[in-house]
Amino acid sequence: MGHNIEASETVAAAELRQFVERFERLEEEGKAINADKADVLNEAHGRGYNKKAIKTIVRLRAKDPNQRIEEETILQTYMAALGME
Amino acid sequence: MGHNIEASETVAAAELRQFVERFERLEEEGKAINADKADVLNEAHGRGYNKKAIKTIVRLRAKDPNQRIEEETILQTYMAALGME
Repeated sequence: MGHNIEASETVAAAELRQFVERFERLEEEGKAINADKADVLNEAHGRGYNKKAIKTIVRLRAKDPNQRIEEETILQTYMAALGME
Repeated sequence: MGHNIEASETVAAAELRQFVERFERLEEEGKAINADKADVLNEAHGRGYNKKAIKTIVRLRAKDPNQRIEEETILQTYMAALGME
């Protein structure tokens, strides 16, 4: 019985290890992509572009255009109300 | 002159667009990886493992073992001091 428990623990450990290692490989891939994103921004910066503005553009382009215009209109209204123009 | 300015603006816009689109492609790849990570955790959950514990294990495995043991020792000391044992 003790032997069976040990064997079953080993199988579980191997299975768990596989999940952990798959997750770790994906984390590594994610880090590589983040490094590539940093490279793109640095390259753009070297060409005279502003990194923060590029990231904002990417975020804005991901939105539905009508939704974005509506959000900007509301924001403009609030900024005007607060004397931020 | 007006024509030259226009041409140069078009070149700059094309260059900027390339940086933006490269960044967007990397964002898409990053999202795909995040989806794969979620799949691994869901699959592990389906096999009876706890998602949060797996993520914690991955974080702990990324640390230097001696550093991790030192951190755990300090944490244990603080927990004991605060009656959290």
